[in-house]
Amino acid sequence: MEAHASVDRFLSHRRSEGVWISTFSAAELHAQADRVDPRQPLAGLTFAVKDNIDVAGLPTTAACPDFAYEPERSAPVVQRLVDAGAIVVGKTNLDQFATGLTGCRSPYGAPESVFGGGLISGGSSSGSAVAVADGSVSFALGTDTAGSGRVPAALNGIVGVKPTRGLLSTLGVVPACRSLDCVSVFAPTVASAGGVFRAARGRVHQDPWGSEGDRPLPAEPKVGVAEGLDFFADAGQEKAYARIGGDIVLDVAPLLEAGDLLYRGPWVAERLADLDGFLTKMLPVTRRVLEAGYAFSAVDAFRAQHRLRELKAAADRMWERIDVLVLPTIGTTYTQAEIAEDPIGRNLDLGRYTQFANLLGMAAVTVPNGFTEDGRPASLTLFGPAFSDETLLLAASRVRKDDAMTLAVAG
Amino acid sequence: MEAHASVDRFLSHRRSEGVWISTFSAAELHAQADRVDPRQPLAGLTFAVKDNIDVAGLPTTAACPDFAYEPERSAPVVQRLVDAGAIVVGKTNLDQFATGLTGCRSPYGAPESVFGGGLISGGSSSGSAVAVADGSVSFALGTDTAGSGRVPAALNGIVGVKPTRGLLSTLGVVPACRSLDCVSVFAPTVASAGGVFRAARGRVHQDPWGSEGDRPLPAEPKVGVAEGLDFFADAGQEKAYARIGGDIVLDVAPLLEAGDLLYRGPWVAERLADLDGFLTKMLPVTRRVLEAGYAFSAVDAFRAQHRLRELKAAADRMWERIDVLVLPTIGTTYTQAEIAEDPIGRNLDLGRYTQFANLLGMAAVTVPNGFTEDGRPASLTLFGPAFSDETLLLAASRVRKDDAMTLAVAG
Repeated sequence: MEAHASVDRFLSHRRSEGVWISTFSAAELHAQADRVDPRQPLAGLTFAVKDNIDVAGLPTTAACPDFAYEPERSAPVVQRLVDAGAIVVGKTNLDQFATGLTGCRSPYGAPESVFGGGLISGGSSSGSAVAVADGSVSFALGTDTAGSGRVPAALNGIVGVKPTRGLLSTLGVVPACRSLDCVSVFAPTVASAGGVFRAARGRVHQDPWGSEGDRPLPAEPKVGVAEGLDFFADAGQEKAYARIGGDIVLDVAPLLEAGDLLYRGPWVAERLADLDGFLTKMLPVTRRVLEAGYAFSAVDAFRAQHRLRELKAAADRMWERIDVLVLPTIGTTYTQAEIAEDPIGRNLDLGRYTQFANLLGMAAVTVPNGFTEDGRPASLTLFGPAFSDETLLLAASRVRKDDAMTLAVAG
Repeated sequence: MEAHASVDRFLSHRRSEGVWISTFSAAELHAQADRVDPRQPLAGLTFAVKDNIDVAGLPTTAACPDFAYEPERSAPVVQRLVDAGAIVVGKTNLDQFATGLTGCRSPYGAPESVFGGGLISGGSSSGSAVAVADGSVSFALGTDTAGSGRVPAALNGIVGVKPTRGLLSTLGVVPACRSLDCVSVFAPTVASAGGVFRAARGRVHQDPWGSEGDRPLPAEPKVGVAEGLDFFADAGQEKAYARIGGDIVLDVAPLLEAGDLLYRGPWVAERLADLDGFLTKMLPVTRRVLEAGYAFSAVDAFRAQHRLRELKAAADRMWERIDVLVLPTIGTTYTQAEIAEDPIGRNLDLGRYTQFANLLGMAAVTVPNGFTEDGRPASLTLFGPAFSDETLLLAASRVRKDDAMTLAVAG
């Protein structure tokens, strides 16, 4: 896309409410466009950056005004995209300190899903997902610790790629839960998300959390599904998931037990490791979630890590039977009013099928799965072991967009 | 070796004091010998097992009588050696719960080094090292969390192999610090230790801590050494280490900082994760060391893990320049009387050049380095990254046994 036309399109676009925390001026955007070489892989594509990732020239707030700072340089992952010809237009809203899956935990407002009707945008990468879904930008960066790169993709009908931990550098990203944090990609299609992922990945020498690797693509991916999942009495979402066929039905109990360690176990304390100095500046709900971490001792932390190791061994045995596990991204959807009634309990429900992935070292790709009969978005997430990102992108590209919505990769 | 002759040799051997906690009867040993096939790789070799590793038919005490239990089956790593033709003769003394590097922390006595003069045996695998060094057995199994498979090798003039974590299964091993524990091998020579290591390694399906891997052997290993090390005013040990030549001199400060996390940081709490129910049954010194773990919160544990990740990144950059790092195994030696004067402080000194290895994911091989002028044993440990075990064994086999004691692998 011609870079200046792309900038003009962003500038004239009607922006959804509560999505942007800061944006570059028209002059700054056109200056970026001047530097684009049309031969670059992402030439002239506009993108949004979640406001817990540094972009030189804009403050990083993590949706906490008292935390805000002016970064000297962009995060390496942002710089890689700019170096590939993309134009960064601004910083997007998030659940404060990337803690939350609702999109309702920010002093900068609560964006609504592009599908309206009071539906939450999902979080924590709320603004990035809506900015892609409403057409403001070609793609966006989010982060994903417990599901923040997948839940908002599900609620806005777009694709979310949560890569294997470390493939996209987290240098220059405000830590949430440092050992689990990932940078994620939102895009309208699997193909565009894959292109951004490939441009963004790459080891950064100074990043102690970096990783690299690629599992070979299987000739024909074997797909696993689960049964007996809890849809929180949402028959529409249950029916949407039931449309999916798989080769093998699996027991995902070890995954769900692992996921519960994140917010109901000692990993909450990992968030305090970097953020305890800002507790008094947080939203009450965020502070309440994080303060629970003080209740855990180091003995608790090691015991939970030992249990996690056992659960990971169980999950890893799953990959001896299948290449891709398909689950609903979320069991049900909520409106902003429903979240207000029970902001912590319903947040946990939203994370049920996402929050285990980083603890268990998985990669994940979220794709739309049509709609429920009452018009709410449905979504699937494809999971694989570490470094199976390209397998998941391939499998996701085969999720058919026809009425049956069967996963074409299934035997 | 003919199996029955091997058994008779063990039975008639004069056993060092404080080494054995339990042994099989003559009839039981000859029954084992009956089952040996001379074509097996370890046919008829006798071996000792540290008494924190299960052997069916003998109690597992971990040097704590109140903890003792009768295991139903042998640990898989023991069974692999038996299946390779080796004969397990009994269980050896250790620093209680494998906590300590002195060999002076057991209700079953404190074995002396085979070199006498009141020199400590080192620990925690005290009995296993002495049983090999005094010729009672062909080889022995130990465990190594902070240096327990290396320090006693150094003090008894033998070889100690501390494999990459997970290569030798820790199923059926009493946990000390579960995420770091390794089974280790003691033998008189590098060649015999290597043969035992290869027979013992192998993934056990049910073991969540298992791993497998082999780095390719470098054509000519590049060797790094350190300078400015603290020998605790022991000029003899300093001189012994100075005999070693290396290609590159490295800064090992990140390694030493990582090592300090083990006993001076929250990893002490990991020991409590499995053992806190036995605190009141422990020796006062062991209890005092472990109780320090209660002072750490989960936030402390995660912060220390984050710091460790940074230190590991620094250590990993070292492997871009060298294949093998050579350090003194211990900076100085102590007598049992000297340990009694300061049992905790001098234990820490003994671990200075060993305790970082498992935290940083390294493999290590300990080899004798001749003697000091006043006749005390000197020792070297060769370190490499995870899965470099065969490289280390190769390099260790080239440590020349002549006066110069130079490392022949050095350019």
